Amino acid sequence: MTTLGHLINGVRVDREERTQDIFNPSVGEVAGQVSLASKATVEEAIAAAEAAYPAWRDTPAAKRARIMFRFKQLLEEHADEIVRLVGQEHGKIVHDARGELARGIENVEYACYAPELLKGEHSKNTGPSIDSWSEFQPLGVVAGITPFNFPAMVPLWMYPMAIACGNTFVLKPSERDPSSALYIAELAQEAGLPAGVINVVNGDKEAVDTLLDDPRVQAVSFVGSTPIAEYIYSRASASGKRCQALGGAKNHAIVMPDADMDNVVNSLNGAAFGSSGERCMALSVAVAVGDEAADTLIAKMQEQMKSLKVGPFSDKSNDFGPVITKAHQEKVCGYIDSAEQQGATIVVDGRGVQVPGHDNGFYVGGTLIDRVTPEMTCYQEEIFGPVLLVVRAGSMDEAMKLIDDHEYGNGTCIYTRDGEAARYFSDRIQVGMVGINVPLPVPVSYHSFGGWKRSLFGDLSAYGPDAVRFYTRRKTITQRWPSAGVREGAQFSFPS
Amino acid sequence: MTTLGHLINGVRVDREERTQDIFNPSVGEVAGQVSLASKATVEEAIAAAEAAYPAWRDTPAAKRARIMFRFKQLLEEHADEIVRLVGQEHGKIVHDARGELARGIENVEYACYAPELLKGEHSKNTGPSIDSWSEFQPLGVVAGITPFNFPAMVPLWMYPMAIACGNTFVLKPSERDPSSALYIAELAQEAGLPAGVINVVNGDKEAVDTLLDDPRVQAVSFVGSTPIAEYIYSRASASGKRCQALGGAKNHAIVMPDADMDNVVNSLNGAAFGSSGERCMALSVAVAVGDEAADTLIAKMQEQMKSLKVGPFSDKSNDFGPVITKAHQEKVCGYIDSAEQQGATIVVDGRGVQVPGHDNGFYVGGTLIDRVTPEMTCYQEEIFGPVLLVVRAGSMDEAMKLIDDHEYGNGTCIYTRDGEAARYFSDRIQVGMVGINVPLPVPVSYHSFGGWKRSLFGDLSAYGPDAVRFYTRRKTITQRWPSAGVREGAQFSFPS
Amino acid sequence: MTTLGHLINGVRVDREERTQDIFNPSVGEVAGQVSLASKATVEEAIAAAEAAYPAWRDTPAAKRARIMFRFKQLLEEHADEIVRLVGQEHGKIVHDARGELARGIENVEYACYAPELLKGEHSKNTGPSIDSWSEFQPLGVVAGITPFNFPAMVPLWMYPMAIACGNTFVLKPSERDPSSALYIAELAQEAGLPAGVINVVNGDKEAVDTLLDDPRVQAVSFVGSTPIAEYIYSRASASGKRCQALGGAKNHAIVMPDADMDNVVNSLNGAAFGSSGERCMALSVAVAVGDEAADTLIAKMQEQMKSLKVGPFSDKSNDFGPVITKAHQEKVCGYIDSAEQQGATIVVDGRGVQVPGHDNGFYVGGTLIDRVTPEMTCYQEEIFGPVLLVVRAGSMDEAMKLIDDHEYGNGTCIYTRDGEAARYFSDRIQVGMVGINVPLPVPVSYHSFGGWKRSLFGDLSAYGPDAVRFYTRRKTITQRWPSAGVREGAQFSFPS
Amino acid sequence: MTTLGHLINGVRVDREERTQDIFNPSVGEVAGQVSLASKATVEEAIAAAEAAYPAWRDTPAAKRARIMFRFKQLLEEHADEIVRLVGQEHGKIVHDARGELARGIENVEYACYAPELLKGEHSKNTGPSIDSWSEFQPLGVVAGITPFNFPAMVPLWMYPMAIACGNTFVLKPSERDPSSALYIAELAQEAGLPAGVINVVNGDKEAVDTLLDDPRVQAVSFVGSTPIAEYIYSRASASGKRCQALGGAKNHAIVMPDADMDNVVNSLNGAAFGSSGERCMALSVAVAVGDEAADTLIAKMQEQMKSLKVGPFSDKSNDFGPVITKAHQEKVCGYIDSAEQQGATIVVDGRGVQVPGHDNGFYVGGTLIDRVTPEMTCYQEEIFGPVLLVVRAGSMDEAMKLIDDHEYGNGTCIYTRDGEAARYFSDRIQVGMVGINVPLPVPVSYHSFGGWKRSLFGDLSAYGPDAVRFYTRRKTITQRWPSAGVREGAQFSFPS
Repeated sequence: MTTLGHLINGVRVDREERTQDIFNPSVGEVAGQVSLASKATVEEAIAAAEAAYPAWRDTPAAKRARIMFRFKQLLEEHADEIVRLVGQEHGKIVHDARGELARGIENVEYACYAPELLKGEHSKNTGPSIDSWSEFQPLGVVAGITPFNFPAMVPLWMYPMAIACGNTFVLKPSERDPSSALYIAELAQEAGLPAGVINVVNGDKEAVDTLLDDPRVQAVSFVGSTPIAEYIYSRASASGKRCQALGGAKNHAIVMPDADMDNVVNSLNGAAFGSSGERCMALSVAVAVGDEAADTLIAKMQEQMKSLKVGPFSDKSNDFGPVITKAHQEKVCGYIDSAEQQGATIVVDGRGVQVPGHDNGFYVGGTLIDRVTPEMTCYQEEIFGPVLLVVRAGSMDEAMKLIDDHEYGNGTCIYTRDGEAARYFSDRIQVGMVGINVPLPVPVSYHSFGGWKRSLFGDLSAYGPDAVRFYTRRKTITQRWPSAGVREGAQFSFPS
Repeated sequence: MTTLGHLINGVRVDREERTQDIFNPSVGEVAGQVSLASKATVEEAIAAAEAAYPAWRDTPAAKRARIMFRFKQLLEEHADEIVRLVGQEHGKIVHDARGELARGIENVEYACYAPELLKGEHSKNTGPSIDSWSEFQPLGVVAGITPFNFPAMVPLWMYPMAIACGNTFVLKPSERDPSSALYIAELAQEAGLPAGVINVVNGDKEAVDTLLDDPRVQAVSFVGSTPIAEYIYSRASASGKRCQALGGAKNHAIVMPDADMDNVVNSLNGAAFGSSGERCMALSVAVAVGDEAADTLIAKMQEQMKSLKVGPFSDKSNDFGPVITKAHQEKVCGYIDSAEQQGATIVVDGRGVQVPGHDNGFYVGGTLIDRVTPEMTCYQEEIFGPVLLVVRAGSMDEAMKLIDDHEYGNGTCIYTRDGEAARYFSDRIQVGMVGINVPLPVPVSYHSFGGWKRSLFGDLSAYGPDAVRFYTRRKTITQRWPSAGVREGAQFSFPS
Repeated sequence: MTTLGHLINGVRVDREERTQDIFNPSVGEVAGQVSLASKATVEEAIAAAEAAYPAWRDTPAAKRARIMFRFKQLLEEHADEIVRLVGQEHGKIVHDARGELARGIENVEYACYAPELLKGEHSKNTGPSIDSWSEFQPLGVVAGITPFNFPAMVPLWMYPMAIACGNTFVLKPSERDPSSALYIAELAQEAGLPAGVINVVNGDKEAVDTLLDDPRVQAVSFVGSTPIAEYIYSRASASGKRCQALGGAKNHAIVMPDADMDNVVNSLNGAAFGSSGERCMALSVAVAVGDEAADTLIAKMQEQMKSLKVGPFSDKSNDFGPVITKAHQEKVCGYIDSAEQQGATIVVDGRGVQVPGHDNGFYVGGTLIDRVTPEMTCYQEEIFGPVLLVVRAGSMDEAMKLIDDHEYGNGTCIYTRDGEAARYFSDRIQVGMVGINVPLPVPVSYHSFGGWKRSLFGDLSAYGPDAVRFYTRRKTITQRWPSAGVREGAQFSFPS
Repeated sequence: MTTLGHLINGVRVDREERTQDIFNPSVGEVAGQVSLASKATVEEAIAAAEAAYPAWRDTPAAKRARIMFRFKQLLEEHADEIVRLVGQEHGKIVHDARGELARGIENVEYACYAPELLKGEHSKNTGPSIDSWSEFQPLGVVAGITPFNFPAMVPLWMYPMAIACGNTFVLKPSERDPSSALYIAELAQEAGLPAGVINVVNGDKEAVDTLLDDPRVQAVSFVGSTPIAEYIYSRASASGKRCQALGGAKNHAIVMPDADMDNVVNSLNGAAFGSSGERCMALSVAVAVGDEAADTLIAKMQEQMKSLKVGPFSDKSNDFGPVITKAHQEKVCGYIDSAEQQGATIVVDGRGVQVPGHDNGFYVGGTLIDRVTPEMTCYQEEIFGPVLLVVRAGSMDEAMKLIDDHEYGNGTCIYTRDGEAARYFSDRIQVGMVGINVPLPVPVSYHSFGGWKRSLFGDLSAYGPDAVRFYTRRKTITQRWPSAGVREGAQFSFPS
């Protein structure tokens, strides 16, 4: 069984540090070990990034982008291996992992646009013969700390653009499923990145704190849960870094009486249970407006969920796989228990699901819970499992108030055919990413990803145009040339 | 003698709170009192802003901008009174106060562009029949905390744009010279702002902390010294607010051997001593490259400074006025003392300057100090007085290293005729605002103002395009209409 | 009775040329004379503009914009007089003229944004130590030729932005109602434009051809009918000028069965009959999908039209006034005659309308014609009168095909509540300006105005962002400084 | 010997039409034949493009862009073959052809950015509850007509972006060296373009006129000589198409007395003689300011030119190859003759150059002519050969006047170290592409290419951001939803 080390200054290294087990959640067994970087190892990575910075910063943006073109190509060529690594350690089914990778590659495509995105603003004659312009210069060494649930994609939200902007990078992926991130970073090097431009350190809190405290690290991007996001944000800010920290979610869909209910059920099914609900954009609460809509929704969902298939990542016929750990499996089931105890109706129950031949896998079946109310624990917290709650609201305004009162504000959706209802909703709802008949309104790679309220700490969203601003600093230059020295001198000195 | 109160929900109020003296520094006498708002008073202002928000947010941007057009007009019409209030409490000479106001009005002009600046990005067919677009929505109630040195201008950096973006505002101006800010805010109301959209509270730390802690305040803009900026940034961030906090500076000019030395001396004179050097963009260190350049510079500056005239704000023939307080006068002189003790050469000495008829005014004369080194106290700290230090460097790279090693990175300048030197400097120097033969490279209002390093905490700069991003939140909407209901239905239902 | 001359180089001049009558169409009497400029007079104006160009081009954009701020103010202060001049010569009712002026002022507001809009794109390191940026430089002397129907607004679409971009201008307004344009241009001068920056010549084809042929004129903007637009476009292009020529329209509204019919009728009423239908964005064809929608529409329109009031411009209770000339009155009535002859149903007949006390005014009453078909003359041509045609379509696709088959493609609208229908329509329809439940989808001043097909000749639309591109030329600068001359020289020359 | 046909609707076709010889200019022999498309063949291509349009238009921009990513990859993989085809028919040396291809690929890279570049502007609340946004929609079928001198690159300026924007395309490459364009278009198909999206027709005036007149063609891009550009522009405009037509050039470099003369000579050498001067950006006139600069320049150039090597394309040691035809060889020599007769000094004479073993190749040696004056034929016309003229000017202003007085305004350059001279020059010179110490200031692919004066007919430049505007039409949508139908209805209908 192998131990996964780090990628520092262009080579794989292992520093014989503490290690931690990596599981294959589909079978519930240990699949390998990962090194947990010491402070010294992280500092070695930072030093490598710092050393690589000056030359990389001076490389023209078009050349940097050209490496991203090549990186995209390599990611496509090695998709099968990436998908296998993701599935084995995370548990997501092949088609889902492939989708994750595709979204990641789209972020690499956007990084290819760097020469366009880095354009500054040039003003002629801000005063007589004075010009002024802005440049968006890189920051230096920046760091990314990424979660287990999208082990391939979230790192690709971050470093392709950071690097295309001229920074060098230290990535600390989730220690639960680190293999794909490491593998992908090696492809980035193969695409032409000089040694030290991208570094990967595996680790836990020691590694994280080192990145947060080291003065050479200029900025930190984080995606994870809200409590950790808050910690990251305040500690990074306290050491003068710029920081963006994305946290948890509780994404509601409003189902209006005029919605196309077959469309609702089809799309909710994927949005609630896909990837076992371990997505910060998972649709975890459906708010039906009126009992008629609620009853229809429940009946149709119940029917549809009969064909939901849960099982190991390697079987393409499965709809979704296990959750990430045994402990998380228990936590999710605990939320279902609490809902039952607090008076909700368990319409479809995923506790105790059987997956023949994979008895030790960390499985939870698709779960549908009706008559949920805002006071219940299952409503207030992020479950991060294949559990869809249904809340019944008396009016659209009541439904919207539920959403606005929740501490999270990541994504939301409305199902309706009506232009006015859609516009009223999208205008007013206090949520950063809004879908109209789109249950997973993840912005495409050329827009930016960011929730509101306690789902995002920082001013700028992830990937897309905002990432360019996050990974660069504005410099404004004002220029006036003193007098017509050479020009008029030349005139006078001309021999007649 | 009057006591200055607050502007809350459209009316001037006084809540009989603690008060503090306002001085006229030109004569060194008390000119009035200012109320120091209690927590309750600040909360009253926040509540007024919160109540005004929903209707203001829904007012079309073009209408909001039209009030800014009218505001600009009123500022121009009442310029004399504003200039008088600034001069009396701050001490700056009429022409300087007029310049300050002009820069402030330019920020109001830029706020007039809000309909253009608030445009979101619209993408057709992000997927089949799916559209996606971003909206930059206002935040709600935002606050500004502003310094004494530009009592009219810095508030205008903030609230015109914040308000044009649809926010409502609570301003806490400096308690040392609060009259102009209050007067100007009343003009903003006269221009058509509904009650509660702009509120002004005078106060000290109690008021500041209330603004930083109140959960209804969504964002805080601050300009002041670096220690306070850090405090503001960490406290506001800890309560989940977005924050931009601008701090101190130590702005260096590099004087190259090929510089047009008459131009250098003329422009340094204003940049170092204007407004008694109480500007975060004051040019306080000249780094001469080569002793020849240094000697020439010293000789010409010394000559030029003979005609520098310091005196009361009301006499237009003065070049600059007093510093803000007795304590600050002593502090500035203390820095000159320390330079002398630490081995620098006091070429022109402004300590003990006499201003006949204004013996109690807080005056410091223009001071020129040669042979300053990086270890000296006067070099390491921000003096904020009419003191120009000269450092001698052996090469341009040595001069640049001095700048990059300083903790501040607000503004800097190079004097040269040479295109290559200018480009090398502006590309590499670790400072946010760079002048090429421009000693005060304050960006025009349609660019943004922001230093690097410990001169700015936060991702986004002040005013200009960055302010639009700071005072708004990105919302991304993804839309797909479910099926051709009405359209095809209409087709079938048509009676033949 | 006065004769209206020209505004050349800052002064009103009259060159004793040919003249033409100006009518007051509300009473049908001659109200004055206008001079028709000879070639020499137009060349005098061009020469004035050319002489004013160099200094104006070098005036910082912010200063040019500041004059536009002042111009806006003067337009607001003199609105009553402008509205009176428009009403007297054009015939539109006070409230309508006031609306026209308001839209014109919005274009002046947009011209105030020039410093932002003129920003070029700056790229650092397009190659090693090579920078490249674009500047949008003015063209020189540009000309505008404007129509009678918006005598105040259309000139304001053109010259404020052209001038704010650094060009100088020669305007030839309609000779039928030239007074307001001349008056407004004088206000622009009063606002601070130097003499020669804005010039107005009155005239006919001789003046137009002079502007089209003179090599000093760099660009021509035109708004009028399609045959003239084509003439202008080909003649200006042949002499190497850039040209944008806006022509006629036939704007259709599709009324879907699910439309809010009261809203339809209310808004169609204004859109079809306002300003006597003499608008290139007038809604002149309603296409009802299904006979039920058509019958309801006809019934409600007929009822609503009973209260339509036509009469002289000076009576504010009127809904609309006369058409522009006796000849045009006859032409409009001729179209109604032809519709009747070709088999349409005249539901409400505006021919022979009586306006007591104004028997000689050029009035046509609001007219509603049902069962119009594409073969009819009244359908194929632009009527430019208060006549609304109703066509009945069997499906939405059939309705859209009607629109796409028409030679014009200026504006169009759909009435529906359904998101999908609206998106399908706006995506596919071959028309440049599309309304969803908005019958007059005139873009706001910070977007651009332009039809498709034979409604616009040229690449760039009128006003808004496109106008900035039309009135400027891109210049791209690529810069590399040869070697570290001064910088390294300085290093060596330093005496040790 | 093969006959080159066309690429129509995805397949190579030959319609047994008129043919024309293709030469290998390095040896002066016929290398093949090319078909000259009849009107019917061109119409077949247009029909194919029209048929492919609807589906292509509806393909999401990101998918279209993804084909461009793949296209770039294929171009890189097949670079050797492309370079060989270019060299054989055009005569340019391998390294030069490789450079041409690299610039072409950069334009494909920029087309990959289409999802970003096609973003429209979205405005919330242009009025109460009214939103408005712009979409940049494709035009339909567009055509490109390209010159012999960059047979691979100029087509890549056009169709990758046109196609990425959703248009379909008909390319007519130069009939003198058509093979590379045909080969490259097949790679574009292999990359994934559906049949009919890119079509190539070979031909002469008959093909051109068909493209210009056919109403299905919406836009034409042309690059060639000025007389043809004018013809194309006026004929395309007359048929209502949008058109951009790039013509000839006479690019001047000003050599200031302070210039780094070794840099001048090195870079002029390549800029004047590279690709035998058959470039619209070739630097063909050096204007030396002062006789001293002129004398030095002449002396150093003369020395440097001794090592210039002319010969067949296949020998990598050559600096440049033959000109395109025998007739052109004679024309270029004729210009040298005329210079001699009109009094200029032939410093280095390229007439009668010998290339051993390639006696029939169309060679002209590098030629340097001093003391050229504006009246000479060689100065007034575009030579398009390896001939550098030197004009002597008495001052910088005199040098600039020469440039501004020339009918062309494509590219220009100044050599100086002085910031002020460079800024004065780039600000004022009436030329579209300006170099500062850069003799071939061809904008990078993410800026746009366009001359001024008679070097470009049309408003928008080639490639870069302008190409996006050229290949799309603005549509502005204004949307208001009528009333709170479903939303409030839902509220009322809820059973209590």
